Amino acid sequence: MIHPNSEKNPHLPFGDQQNALFYGKDILSVNQFDRNGLEYIFGVAHEMREMVSRVGSFDLLKGKILANLFYEPSTRTSSSFIAAMERLGGSVISINEVQYSSVSKGESLPDTIRTLECYADVIVLRHPETGASSLAAQYAKKPVINAGDGVGEHPTQALLDLYTILEELGKVDGVTVTLLGDLKYGRTVHSLARLLSLFGVRINYVSPGILKMPSEVIETLEAQNIEQMEFETLDEVLPSTDVLYVTRVQKERFDDIDAYESVKSAYVITPDTMKAARDDMILMHPLPRVGEISREVDDDPRAAYFRQMEYGLYVRMALLAMVLGKA
Amino acid sequence: MIHPNSEKNPHLPFGDQQNALFYGKDILSVNQFDRNGLEYIFGVAHEMREMVSRVGSFDLLKGKILANLFYEPSTRTSSSFIAAMERLGGSVISINEVQYSSVSKGESLPDTIRTLECYADVIVLRHPETGASSLAAQYAKKPVINAGDGVGEHPTQALLDLYTILEELGKVDGVTVTLLGDLKYGRTVHSLARLLSLFGVRINYVSPGILKMPSEVIETLEAQNIEQMEFETLDEVLPSTDVLYVTRVQKERFDDIDAYESVKSAYVITPDTMKAARDDMILMHPLPRVGEISREVDDDPRAAYFRQMEYGLYVRMALLAMVLGKA
Amino acid sequence: MIHPNSEKNPHLPFGDQQNALFYGKDILSVNQFDRNGLEYIFGVAHEMREMVSRVGSFDLLKGKILANLFYEPSTRTSSSFIAAMERLGGSVISINEVQYSSVSKGESLPDTIRTLECYADVIVLRHPETGASSLAAQYAKKPVINAGDGVGEHPTQALLDLYTILEELGKVDGVTVTLLGDLKYGRTVHSLARLLSLFGVRINYVSPGILKMPSEVIETLEAQNIEQMEFETLDEVLPSTDVLYVTRVQKERFDDIDAYESVKSAYVITPDTMKAARDDMILMHPLPRVGEISREVDDDPRAAYFRQMEYGLYVRMALLAMVLGKA
Repeated sequence: MIHPNSEKNPHLPFGDQQNALFYGKDILSVNQFDRNGLEYIFGVAHEMREMVSRVGSFDLLKGKILANLFYEPSTRTSSSFIAAMERLGGSVISINEVQYSSVSKGESLPDTIRTLECYADVIVLRHPETGASSLAAQYAKKPVINAGDGVGEHPTQALLDLYTILEELGKVDGVTVTLLGDLKYGRTVHSLARLLSLFGVRINYVSPGILKMPSEVIETLEAQNIEQMEFETLDEVLPSTDVLYVTRVQKERFDDIDAYESVKSAYVITPDTMKAARDDMILMHPLPRVGEISREVDDDPRAAYFRQMEYGLYVRMALLAMVLGKA
Repeated sequence: MIHPNSEKNPHLPFGDQQNALFYGKDILSVNQFDRNGLEYIFGVAHEMREMVSRVGSFDLLKGKILANLFYEPSTRTSSSFIAAMERLGGSVISINEVQYSSVSKGESLPDTIRTLECYADVIVLRHPETGASSLAAQYAKKPVINAGDGVGEHPTQALLDLYTILEELGKVDGVTVTLLGDLKYGRTVHSLARLLSLFGVRINYVSPGILKMPSEVIETLEAQNIEQMEFETLDEVLPSTDVLYVTRVQKERFDDIDAYESVKSAYVITPDTMKAARDDMILMHPLPRVGEISREVDDDPRAAYFRQMEYGLYVRMALLAMVLGKA
Repeated sequence: MIHPNSEKNPHLPFGDQQNALFYGKDILSVNQFDRNGLEYIFGVAHEMREMVSRVGSFDLLKGKILANLFYEPSTRTSSSFIAAMERLGGSVISINEVQYSSVSKGESLPDTIRTLECYADVIVLRHPETGASSLAAQYAKKPVINAGDGVGEHPTQALLDLYTILEELGKVDGVTVTLLGDLKYGRTVHSLARLLSLFGVRINYVSPGILKMPSEVIETLEAQNIEQMEFETLDEVLPSTDVLYVTRVQKERFDDIDAYESVKSAYVITPDTMKAARDDMILMHPLPRVGEISREVDDDPRAAYFRQMEYGLYVRMALLAMVLGKA
């Protein structure tokens, strides 16, 4: 599935080639990262964080152009990539093909990609169809970054989730992570679980019976000796949880409305939930949220979900700089 | 209603704090300005005008990012803010939530704002609901500029209107302003009247009987000893008018189509109207216009409405620079 | 039809006025170019190509703002102009009036243009109505570049087509160009034919009987002593063709579906077609394509249509720099 693209931009424009793990590479799937690669990305992301804190923006990618190609709306992810490029001094071509489109003229994704790479240095692609990013990467000579392709992958979300844990807790090894909510359909939690498995973590899955983590994911992690346990309520595992990662339980997933009503409150985080949680726990959410975390929790210092957005900026800055050979 | 936000960006990045009246502040309502504040804004706007005339653009806000968040279409205002930021060397994230939206996923405005301020340094917000900007400002740590919230406020429009009078006539004190058209529903004229009341002006209101200036506005200005008079036709006051500010009379406001037909021509400005006007009068309009000023008037040097757009650029440049602590 | 606009930006900001053929000028129609003008444009485009190849972007238009105003979707053209401006260090205000619009408030095109030129230094306009660009140029003090107006003109497409031939073959004089497909309704091929007529070329028209090149175009070229021949199939002329320019034959053009079915395969380029073509022929297409060139042809080195997109970038960079007096 992952395009090897060893041919892309083979010549580094500057000295040190050793760290250039991702120069000219596509970022398509969490499966392409090993622990070494993650540590490199997070090291660069941390430098980005410090630079932004000190000077706001800087000219590392001055003169470079990002084509930010979104075939479905995602203000959050789109804005994050635009900001990342702009804080690095680069420029952006924003293309929202949803309403404004050559697609209406029937053009194929490969043709659109081959056109855009005539203009841009790197392409970020959001697409409703699984595998769209891999397809794009096959045709592109320039690096492609997957910003979500249907029920497929959204690797930069998983990277920022993991980076949030690292920055907030200072480590990932030894941490107990509880994934809460809809674990069956949530692309986000599947990818995060896979990345977590590269570290010595313990994972709790808390979900309604019909929304359990797919066995395929559990088996993969089992093969890596990750300690995993499944629950239907949070109470039991909350006190031992270092990271509580919340996702939405959607009414539409339930055939029986009574079944939904009977479980839903168990998956809403309130100030009472936080009372039972550890003082140094962090509460995460991929956002947007719609009621699954009460707004009264926002001012709790353990509520990390808005900081999580900010960490996303640094991770995306790191990825853009890396694939363009500047970090 | 106005968020005090005394906590926002409390430390100035450079020396002189004296002039930093608006550093880190939100711009939400015309009610937050006194005469001193207006003079400061217009002084900076005038400097912006001279800089643009001399060099076009400059790097005062290099590295800063504006999130330009529009929940309803307004090409004019949106473009003006984008240009203002770009002429100051800054970058923009343009978000048109109308068609392209997390809102469709049900996210609240505070959550959207708290996300965007992770990426941007200042937020400009246009929203169909009254009070949306104040709500946004309550949650934002970064400055919020209201670019129009429903029937609420559109303070930068009122500021550019007043600045136009100042630049065109050289003063505001002592000027006779005639507001013409729909004075009942026009957010623009309400805000302008409030700002004018800080100066020694005389104001004429000319409107159909059913579209008169609300008594609430008139009483407020009365309390400030502003001389105000109401009319149903322009003829009587035109010769003594220094500033003729035209707004549209919409057919939809009338229950009776005959009533509309009988008054409408009295509110259309033609070359004949201009013949009866003073040589040094200026003709203003917030735009867009649809027939209420005949296009034959455009080449009259007194037609100031396109220059008014340009003054809007300088006012918005001034505001952006000020809230970011650079002016 | 062409606005003379001799008044626009009459003073050059720097020394050499000799080469400033297009400074302050509108780019509205292919009819405004003579051979001298084309050679100048292509000379600048070639310099742009070399600069992009060497440094990617540079600051020739730093501080300048392009208003990119699209009243109908065209991702390709829009992205190309944005990239052109950004690679020259300038900024862009992107306005897609399709869905996001003052137009809904009934504003006229001249008013929109006069507003935008308060903010921007140059306006690129795409509009569904023929003559829209000329109308805009009449009212604008700043240069207007026509990016396609209905069935009217799309001069930058014709320029990039011609520039592609020049860069790929090293010359235009003496070349045999075969235009294939829908020659009746294709704005692209009409404009290209007019530009080609300034050079010593031979032109073959290959189309179904009902989609022949309009006699008006043929007569114009005849008056310039251009050798032209008409065909219904490609076979005969393919071996002597230097440039094969393909356009789409749309089913909707045919009253009779059988008539369509009987001709369509004759207008699809496949690897077999390419076998019969010369080794140094180039295959062009304005894109987007939908089946009229088989994707198997893409890897043929003679397939020039993606390079054609890239040449479009250089031509648009050249035009922007020239009308702004910087080349």
